[in-house]
Amino acid sequence: MILVLAESALELVPKEIWNHPAVLADARRRGKRPGEILLDRVRHHPAMRLLADAKRRGRPDIVHQVLLAFQYSLLAKRGLGKAYIHTRDDYVIAVSPEARVPKNYNNFVALIEQLFALGKVPPKGEPLMELYRKDLATLLQELGGVWAVFHESGARKPLSQMGSELLKSVVVVGGFPHGDFQNKWVVEKAAVVYSLGEESLDAAQVICKAVTAAEVAAGLL
Amino acid sequence: MILVLAESALELVPKEIWNHPAVLADARRRGKRPGEILLDRVRHHPAMRLLADAKRRGRPDIVHQVLLAFQYSLLAKRGLGKAYIHTRDDYVIAVSPEARVPKNYNNFVALIEQLFALGKVPPKGEPLMELYRKDLATLLQELGGVWAVFHESGARKPLSQMGSELLKSVVVVGGFPHGDFQNKWVVEKAAVVYSLGEESLDAAQVICKAVTAAEVAAGLL
Repeated sequence: MILVLAESALELVPKEIWNHPAVLADARRRGKRPGEILLDRVRHHPAMRLLADAKRRGRPDIVHQVLLAFQYSLLAKRGLGKAYIHTRDDYVIAVSPEARVPKNYNNFVALIEQLFALGKVPPKGEPLMELYRKDLATLLQELGGVWAVFHESGARKPLSQMGSELLKSVVVVGGFPHGDFQNKWVVEKAAVVYSLGEESLDAAQVICKAVTAAEVAAGLL
Repeated sequence: MILVLAESALELVPKEIWNHPAVLADARRRGKRPGEILLDRVRHHPAMRLLADAKRRGRPDIVHQVLLAFQYSLLAKRGLGKAYIHTRDDYVIAVSPEARVPKNYNNFVALIEQLFALGKVPPKGEPLMELYRKDLATLLQELGGVWAVFHESGARKPLSQMGSELLKSVVVVGGFPHGDFQNKWVVEKAAVVYSLGEESLDAAQVICKAVTAAEVAAGLL
């Protein structure tokens, strides 16, 4: 199973708000420059009112939750899963199946900041995460051009019937807190559109269910 | 499904290390007294060398992960789940099924610190979390005296065959990072002992699987 978390709400603090007091105070406290820290709704809320599309930005916690759910699963431990994080401004983070993502949120944020600074982490040796500039269409093309997507418009189907397909699919899940994909073609051109339950679920919840179904299909559970 | 996260690695900074520089610096930064902040391995690592059983302490992130996995599930949203957090020094946090646990780790930590200070949160109105002094035996007795437990000594059984039992059970999962239950009777006296996969999994992973199985059994997935 290849997971693509798409349009994730993960980015460095954008230039427009580098001089906002909430950003400056946070950067100073952490001994970094404003452009070196991740945008975070909890810390930069007052500054974010100045940003376009603010509701869908500044949520590194979503990416963290998703990676914890994915990387520590049996699926990943058995080498049957690989995750790519695509961000709203078209960066892609390729995550090694061996990467033990920091469980502590603040350590995770620091690691991603290092990744944006250096292009890979750790800086030496086999990288556990690598950062590229790449749009979603190119990423999905490189992964074979065929994908499934979780979206509320999808047909509901028992979870137990999704597992074996998910296990061998490129699976796209939205990494944003509200609204819909801006790349509408992700849903329109998907080979399969899955839906879970009757209400929208967090990305991490969707991934927990999808991974569990794939693990059952792989005979791991 | 009633979840009991047992012997969780959640506590206020203990008196022995109130005067350690790592603790003092963190407390000062947060404008609190050392005895008012949660012990956290990431922040208090140098001080924790002075503590007994340190390996199993100072991991509020485990409780956070578990509550995110549980409270935002379809099971909880449909009122079919309730969580209790039992801590290693015999506090119990009763979590309302309606509680929307903060997704940001730092906000979660601040909320739990408020809970230890006030005994409930929010301080006024219907509490979303309440804190009691209560040992694990008393808690399980009050919940009916019959429970299932996840433990590596358990018999493996396909996940799909656990769901309907889990849905109506009191389910105990360890909330500590290493080792085994100190209350050994939790496993010995359990009505059922479940095991998942062939290696030990994080508490949040176990709960994701157990909740998913129960949701399937309830017809939600």
